[in-house]
Amino acid sequence: MALRYLIGVDGGGSGTRLCLADTQGHILTTQTGGPSALGQGIEAAWQTITGLCQQAFNQQHLTFNPAECGIGLGLSGVHNPQWAHAFQVRAPGFGHLQLDTDAFTTLLGAHAGAPGAVVAIGTGSVGEALYADGSRRGVGGWGWTSGDEASGAWLGKHASARTQKALDGRLPDGPLAAAVIQHCGGSADHFMAWLGEADQNAYAQLAPLVLQHSDDDTHARPLLQQAGQEVALLAQALDPEGTLPLALCGGLAQALTPWLPEALRQRIRPAQGDSMQGALILIQKAC
Amino acid sequence: MALRYLIGVDGGGSGTRLCLADTQGHILTTQTGGPSALGQGIEAAWQTITGLCQQAFNQQHLTFNPAECGIGLGLSGVHNPQWAHAFQVRAPGFGHLQLDTDAFTTLLGAHAGAPGAVVAIGTGSVGEALYADGSRRGVGGWGWTSGDEASGAWLGKHASARTQKALDGRLPDGPLAAAVIQHCGGSADHFMAWLGEADQNAYAQLAPLVLQHSDDDTHARPLLQQAGQEVALLAQALDPEGTLPLALCGGLAQALTPWLPEALRQRIRPAQGDSMQGALILIQKAC
Repeated sequence: MALRYLIGVDGGGSGTRLCLADTQGHILTTQTGGPSALGQGIEAAWQTITGLCQQAFNQQHLTFNPAECGIGLGLSGVHNPQWAHAFQVRAPGFGHLQLDTDAFTTLLGAHAGAPGAVVAIGTGSVGEALYADGSRRGVGGWGWTSGDEASGAWLGKHASARTQKALDGRLPDGPLAAAVIQHCGGSADHFMAWLGEADQNAYAQLAPLVLQHSDDDTHARPLLQQAGQEVALLAQALDPEGTLPLALCGGLAQALTPWLPEALRQRIRPAQGDSMQGALILIQKAC
Repeated sequence: MALRYLIGVDGGGSGTRLCLADTQGHILTTQTGGPSALGQGIEAAWQTITGLCQQAFNQQHLTFNPAECGIGLGLSGVHNPQWAHAFQVRAPGFGHLQLDTDAFTTLLGAHAGAPGAVVAIGTGSVGEALYADGSRRGVGGWGWTSGDEASGAWLGKHASARTQKALDGRLPDGPLAAAVIQHCGGSADHFMAWLGEADQNAYAQLAPLVLQHSDDDTHARPLLQQAGQEVALLAQALDPEGTLPLALCGGLAQALTPWLPEALRQRIRPAQGDSMQGALILIQKAC
């Protein structure tokens, strides 16, 4: 059956964005819904995605027939080959399906499918590049417990360590430590309880405090400078000669830009599109 | 009923040591068994401990009657007030019971109950001091996700981050990274899977690799020096004037000693006893 529609999906741990387009890639409608990260369940991801497909077709007064659709998906969790396989075998008969990481669709969106590099900095962090010969490379993205440098969780863990040292007298108190204690319940005991439960998202919620106190806390400034150096290290590994266009993406991209080394900051270009548009490019390229 | 026996217990996540002594504190027998950290279950902790009590009395051909015993316990997890309370209300009718953290009984054991300071470095890290006026203070011990500086888990997380950077080209390869990859399955994919499961204990298993490569890896040496500085920071917060005797305890104490700042290394004295002996001192002091 000939393809009549293209669908682009950006799916993560907090939400999903989906667009319905014609075969030329002109977007007819965009829908948003709940999470579809593969780590939160394969079945749940497909329910979210097919639900949003149905919504998009309903909104356009069209009939949703998967066999007539090519779907491109950039999903969180695709780096796990078992999850990716389980997701693909449960697909409801699309005419064509292309699945990749949300890092790669972010890259495709940022440079409209052309060669380039991105560093995405949000709760986690990851870098990805597409080269002129069609090859690609990922850097970082090893997870929050010991990696994800410069991410929200990474900034939060450093802010937490600094707060611990202020609370037990290893370092002088400061506005950042005071703000962290306030955020985590207002006392050392509350902070200890908070730490017992803290995951990636909880730590990432401390990152705005680091940014807020960049001027008045002696620890926040070197921490942000270190984050900038870590972003530079990711960018340099992706493109040692610095010839590719580079975009900074993710929720912390804008806030961290002033903290990048000057030479890197000069090279940054705005992203042309987002991960959902990149997912549409992914399926366009394949059809 | 008059006390006829004293019992000292050191309980942690991997095992328990218990001694049975007379009322003068002369140890009659020592028994070892499974874990009794409160975080692994209150009921399970009591089962382990009363089982070891029974074993100790059996071994001495004596009858175990809790009412005739004073028991001192230094247990992992006592910093959580809810767990400590739940543990105490389930106690099987001992004549006297004193419960404290294993950090405090380590301190009591190290200096035979006299004023002093300890820094304990194992899977986690914590410092504790007892002052001449009877007051005490703890430093560190905030947990592995963002604290526990210089601990095995802390060393392992840094080694892991360094390995990630070697694998994706952010830093040159080196013997430490090669050893970590080997330990974690032998490939980047195996390492990624390992990271997805890694907890405090898994990270701490990388610490010996850091120590093994202190001479031939350019990253291992500064990391161990940084660990030494973190131990110094704990010691200084406990005793800013450096007048108390200081012992280094825990599984990594000996291996980290050469990496301490010279002035601190000079001050270290061997521990006089362990946490089990400290638990016996805890109950002796109370009776």
